[in-house]
Amino acid sequence: MSGKVKRPKARLPRGFVDTAGGDVLEREAMIASILPVYQRFGFRPLETPVIEHLDALGKFLPDKDRPGEGVFAFRDDDEQWVAMRYDLTAPLARYVAQNRNELTMPFRRYQVGPVFRQEKPGPGRFRQFMQCDFDTVGAKSMVVDAEVCAVLATTLEALGIDRGEYIIRMNDRKVLNGLLSSAGVAVAADDASDDERAAADAQRAHVLRSVDKLDRVGVDGVRLLLGPGREDESGDFTAGVGLADGQIDQIVAFVTAGGGSRSEVLARLRDVVGDEAEGREGIEELETIDGLLTAMDLDSDCVALDTTVVRGLDYYTGPVFEAELTDGTSYGSIAAGGRYDDLVRRFTGQDVPACGASIGVDRLLATLRARAEAAEAPLDGPVMVTVMDADRLVDYQTMVTELRQAGVSAELYLGRKNLGQQLKYADRRRSPAAIIAGSDEFDAGTVVIKNLGYGKEVSADISDREEWLNAPDVQQTVGRGDLVAQVKSLLD
Amino acid sequence: MSGKVKRPKARLPRGFVDTAGGDVLEREAMIASILPVYQRFGFRPLETPVIEHLDALGKFLPDKDRPGEGVFAFRDDDEQWVAMRYDLTAPLARYVAQNRNELTMPFRRYQVGPVFRQEKPGPGRFRQFMQCDFDTVGAKSMVVDAEVCAVLATTLEALGIDRGEYIIRMNDRKVLNGLLSSAGVAVAADDASDDERAAADAQRAHVLRSVDKLDRVGVDGVRLLLGPGREDESGDFTAGVGLADGQIDQIVAFVTAGGGSRSEVLARLRDVVGDEAEGREGIEELETIDGLLTAMDLDSDCVALDTTVVRGLDYYTGPVFEAELTDGTSYGSIAAGGRYDDLVRRFTGQDVPACGASIGVDRLLATLRARAEAAEAPLDGPVMVTVMDADRLVDYQTMVTELRQAGVSAELYLGRKNLGQQLKYADRRRSPAAIIAGSDEFDAGTVVIKNLGYGKEVSADISDREEWLNAPDVQQTVGRGDLVAQVKSLLD
Repeated sequence: MSGKVKRPKARLPRGFVDTAGGDVLEREAMIASILPVYQRFGFRPLETPVIEHLDALGKFLPDKDRPGEGVFAFRDDDEQWVAMRYDLTAPLARYVAQNRNELTMPFRRYQVGPVFRQEKPGPGRFRQFMQCDFDTVGAKSMVVDAEVCAVLATTLEALGIDRGEYIIRMNDRKVLNGLLSSAGVAVAADDASDDERAAADAQRAHVLRSVDKLDRVGVDGVRLLLGPGREDESGDFTAGVGLADGQIDQIVAFVTAGGGSRSEVLARLRDVVGDEAEGREGIEELETIDGLLTAMDLDSDCVALDTTVVRGLDYYTGPVFEAELTDGTSYGSIAAGGRYDDLVRRFTGQDVPACGASIGVDRLLATLRARAEAAEAPLDGPVMVTVMDADRLVDYQTMVTELRQAGVSAELYLGRKNLGQQLKYADRRRSPAAIIAGSDEFDAGTVVIKNLGYGKEVSADISDREEWLNAPDVQQTVGRGDLVAQVKSLLD
Repeated sequence: MSGKVKRPKARLPRGFVDTAGGDVLEREAMIASILPVYQRFGFRPLETPVIEHLDALGKFLPDKDRPGEGVFAFRDDDEQWVAMRYDLTAPLARYVAQNRNELTMPFRRYQVGPVFRQEKPGPGRFRQFMQCDFDTVGAKSMVVDAEVCAVLATTLEALGIDRGEYIIRMNDRKVLNGLLSSAGVAVAADDASDDERAAADAQRAHVLRSVDKLDRVGVDGVRLLLGPGREDESGDFTAGVGLADGQIDQIVAFVTAGGGSRSEVLARLRDVVGDEAEGREGIEELETIDGLLTAMDLDSDCVALDTTVVRGLDYYTGPVFEAELTDGTSYGSIAAGGRYDDLVRRFTGQDVPACGASIGVDRLLATLRARAEAAEAPLDGPVMVTVMDADRLVDYQTMVTELRQAGVSAELYLGRKNLGQQLKYADRRRSPAAIIAGSDEFDAGTVVIKNLGYGKEVSADISDREEWLNAPDVQQTVGRGDLVAQVKSLLD
């Protein structure tokens, strides 16, 4: 066969991106600020592989009903179904179940790495992104939950987000749960059939989705969504849960119980919940956490009790947390977590209490970048040793080696272009200086150092780069033996 | 449906492993030593995603004939074939082709990250492992190839492997290529059919596989493999390439031309190769690199010319390199690289010269660990504040907070066990100290600091841990206000 060669197109699968240069370093710097905080709180690292058995990941992907939905899954060569992890919590549950006889409990680990979602990509919504998790497994104590807030607060402050610039909002799954029970919503009897249970679960999810729309549709909108349904401005109709007015009143009273200090909200919640057992348990959990937070100097302006936080309630079993910036610049939450006491039970049948949180590194980075606006200067390039005479390669390479040995990032120009083009290349690489030596310089035992103006020398009043580069004093001729010292003094 | 619940088994897909605690930190420390060297040589970071289009990865997986073979590939939800990257070079080629109009050439990037192979796992052979690559794209100059050696040497020395403890071995694909041409082996005419070309490629691969067995079967074994075939001790017969004696003589002369300094080997190679054009070109490349290496203080005891290096020859187009430890403790090579001038052409049809190398972080780590034998002490655990009185949780938590604010890694015991069990937990966590306070201490305004003997205090003559922990002077009672200062002085 002959004919036209079919060439692949160089492109990425949709929803994936490359990250280059300073952006990579910025992300690394953020992680390098986060991990010492986790370590200081007693967490130690764990790295699980990117691939897990699909059944081990289970159906814990938030907002998904079907196992494997939203996950990159495929058959391994032994025909077993495997999948790329969609978060770092499911692999932790697998790890704990697999190693439970060797692990010292409570087990505290952190993990940082990319996770993968086979979802529709959108603006700022990628199918691979970086998470940075910490979790405590095997401890029921509410100290763990309070510490989750302390870790988040300390981390955000370590990243330069000051107290008052972020808010951690807290709620408890059990309070809403108890409330729904006492209102007779989404309850299945102990001897209910599978169908009855599924119907109750579906109703509960429908209630959560409706309540979650509070900030978009307001209290009246939520009442309609919980009741007969709601028509929006465009005329689209959203089916309602079909609850009775009394039931709706109770739920709305819960959702609107927020505002003010944690103790004020707690007082209101006690009224709403009454004597229902699970609801009271949830309130006791929140009271314990409130006391611990106060002892840790984390007041209501830092960790607020907010009954409108329902996102993820279906995933967690007790307290839940989410963090965002108070100036509204964060896209959704920049960190989220809570207590999930039944994740390990899937494997072992035993309840293993667990609680932790995840910082969305990429989203936080995007938020801080947008916030900073005036971006910092990107990483400077290497000092560029230019090539005037191809027969002198060894001499040029020696200059590069000397600079590197003195700790200076340096590079020999590697193409075959004239000096002007080489200087243009150095400029594009953001090199702080170029080294030039032709036959005159070699004969005289000198080199020319051209200050390309990147680094500390660039002052605000030099606005025109052309002008700068053509100024008479941007280059100096120095003795060959002084090359390293002169370059270093220029860089300092 | 009712009946027994089917629980997934907690296990990893075969060939994948978890990495925990100190092992994670050790790998991070290694990468943190490598990257500044890459940066000093002018390389800047790039992060490509884990998933690429299968056709973009191409069939460049070494030792594999079929596209997609050995790769975790699957269909995305838009039915396109995607795959997990099997190295960091194929994604680089895709990136360069995709961004060629914006990139400043020569383009120098480093990348660190996991790669994935759907291969049969074996001892020390995993299906996910970490690579750390640097490459220069868009420069034909042999300076690039010499620099690859310099980067590898500088990196290995930065990792504490001294000059003389490692060896970088170098060869050139063109020399063997030219030799095979002049010997009439594996040559297809310009107007050859596809079948004829495929037959020539297969014969070339067969020659390379045969020559690669030199250290196992010796020169006589290689002669048999290149000729009629060879029966091993077990009676198994390996089919031969079927070359004539004269052809075999030439190939064996090339393979055995190593030994001695680079200039000695070069002199012998000139004899073997004669006037064949491609072979001469290869020798000129090696001569240029030799001169540059000498100028960079990289002598033959550091970078040797070794004609037995054929691994990867099929993948590269010019000079090739591989590094190993001289004491034979490395499993195979710990780094490898070379020049591959036609990787970008797959996309664009244009030749883009490229050269670089990859350090196998996990393999190097395993090698250094085996080499160190006496492993260093693992990361110490946090100071453990024990709980004697559950009603005093806030007081205990305050101690933890104070310690953390002073930069001490500290943790509140989170279970519900008695003091003895809490101290056992602290011991298993390798905590340097435990803090104890019961009603006596609270009444007296004191706390007890128990030195658990981890950290600097553990001297060689304390062999019996039980004895240590029961010694009278391992705990001290201090004023509550002195807690932080006393713990800090114990840790120092």
